[in-house]
Amino acid sequence: MRKPVGLGIDVGGTFTKIVAVTPQGRLAGELQIETRARGGAREFVSRAVDAARLLQETRGLKIVSVGVGLAGDTDGRAGKLRFAPNLRPLTGFDFRAAFKGVLKAPVVVDNDANMAAWGGYVLDLKRRAKNVVCITLGTGVGGGLVIDGKLYQGATGSAGEIGHMVVEPDGSLCGCGTRGCLEAYAGTHGIVRTTLKLLEGPSGSKSKLRRLCPDPSLLTPKIISAAAARGDAAARRAFEMTGYYLGVAISNLVYLFNPDAVLLAGGVSGASGALLGPVREVMRSRPMKTPFSKAKIVVAKTPHLGALGAALYGLENR
Amino acid sequence: MRKPVGLGIDVGGTFTKIVAVTPQGRLAGELQIETRARGGAREFVSRAVDAARLLQETRGLKIVSVGVGLAGDTDGRAGKLRFAPNLRPLTGFDFRAAFKGVLKAPVVVDNDANMAAWGGYVLDLKRRAKNVVCITLGTGVGGGLVIDGKLYQGATGSAGEIGHMVVEPDGSLCGCGTRGCLEAYAGTHGIVRTTLKLLEGPSGSKSKLRRLCPDPSLLTPKIISAAAARGDAAARRAFEMTGYYLGVAISNLVYLFNPDAVLLAGGVSGASGALLGPVREVMRSRPMKTPFSKAKIVVAKTPHLGALGAALYGLENR
Repeated sequence: MRKPVGLGIDVGGTFTKIVAVTPQGRLAGELQIETRARGGAREFVSRAVDAARLLQETRGLKIVSVGVGLAGDTDGRAGKLRFAPNLRPLTGFDFRAAFKGVLKAPVVVDNDANMAAWGGYVLDLKRRAKNVVCITLGTGVGGGLVIDGKLYQGATGSAGEIGHMVVEPDGSLCGCGTRGCLEAYAGTHGIVRTTLKLLEGPSGSKSKLRRLCPDPSLLTPKIISAAAARGDAAARRAFEMTGYYLGVAISNLVYLFNPDAVLLAGGVSGASGALLGPVREVMRSRPMKTPFSKAKIVVAKTPHLGALGAALYGLENR
Repeated sequence: MRKPVGLGIDVGGTFTKIVAVTPQGRLAGELQIETRARGGAREFVSRAVDAARLLQETRGLKIVSVGVGLAGDTDGRAGKLRFAPNLRPLTGFDFRAAFKGVLKAPVVVDNDANMAAWGGYVLDLKRRAKNVVCITLGTGVGGGLVIDGKLYQGATGSAGEIGHMVVEPDGSLCGCGTRGCLEAYAGTHGIVRTTLKLLEGPSGSKSKLRRLCPDPSLLTPKIISAAAARGDAAARRAFEMTGYYLGVAISNLVYLFNPDAVLLAGGVSGASGALLGPVREVMRSRPMKTPFSKAKIVVAKTPHLGALGAALYGLENR
């Protein structure tokens, strides 16, 4: 007997993570492929299906549902990607029909951060917090909202776009073309940009970052966070500034949603040591105390949350 | 036979509006009393009950439920006011027990802007829009969220604090003590402050506002909006700036909630002619189009929305 699993496909700008998850939430297999959106949607789906079949055969699995998380604004009802600066060639393509046609299983299509929020709600928070704001911190900054134990979709499936909330009008230019989005400060490029600016300033000449990473174009949040952990002033200041804007955004979200938990997921959340201090400082400064005393900040520990969440969401909504 | 009605009590910093509403949503009577919070909660409740009984007797009504909207953070489960800079002497008082004991009817206690949101959802939007962001524009700026046709309370009943979202870090000082809250720009005092600053600048000397209102301490958004409608440059600029920050807040809310409608209520929303242009300009500038194409901005036309909403909410939750 083959083991029944939900397939989760997390389609990012560069890589696509594919996982198989049991209805109990156990990981039964995983694979990564390149997204290569430029090759077009049909070619991408064909490679993803090959990978899924490989998982199926080698692990003795039976795919009973498919969840697809896409890095962009999705139309869940139509099963399509609607707007995605990083996956432009896949825009308008009917992922649901394509995967359903080949894998013969029900397919849900949603935004990747929504899927990560769902994964974190189920796996990290064990469904104990009923109202959750999830922020995914990576190259982009995404978000998802769980309200009363259900993923909140909004009127058109676009809800939870936390990364493009403006936190500093007339601030740094975001990849989306707007100034001052949270992503422009808390996304990978934003953190690097903040650090580079500081390295040009007075604290820059003494920074270990110049030795750790002589080529500034190779600077990453990981290197910066390592330098901050070792006490480097410029690196610390960069994370303070990032944490400040993240704190402004989270404080606004706490005032709005009054959540039980704020879940931080994605690569950058690994630097939570350097980030959470300034975040909590901003939260403490707000005068209304009750919603802040309730909103627990949790850093997600489950890896591949986007793919796992997509698999779980597919299993529950088949 | 006495006509069954829900009583709605909207407790503001200065005045308290009391209405009686039929289960069909028809206004059956209204009265206004002074709040005079300094006199204490028991004295306030006693006067409010007198007013309610006066309505009951003169109109032949029977009060079957009570809804209380309070200008502050409320604990709906306990029936208490939790945090309220403008109603400090009433903090911690059990309004539910007090009104229930005398009026012998079930009582709900909630935030005033939540009640206005519910009123607008039922009376202005006729429950057609299922996900609604409501912003109340007055002395303070409040908010309420209707999600999937239900008033969203959050983890502690504090959700929807739109007025204290920070829209300009390090911006103007808000009455709450934080810098750059939406209320610091779009509340009555914020609009007046913006205008006074402009009157000191180059366009100020030509402004009709100096003649219309020689005593700057008497300036109100109503006078400013009248001057703007007559083409006064400083007044127009003041509403442009107010509308800009309101637009930033609404755009952030649309990205987050993806609502079917954004409802503007309260006194300042009467100046919507001067405000909505700049609001829409900010919304148009955002690159993701779908949520903005869906989010209809509606200016509430029903008067006393806070009191009516409280009455309706009490009727539905008795």
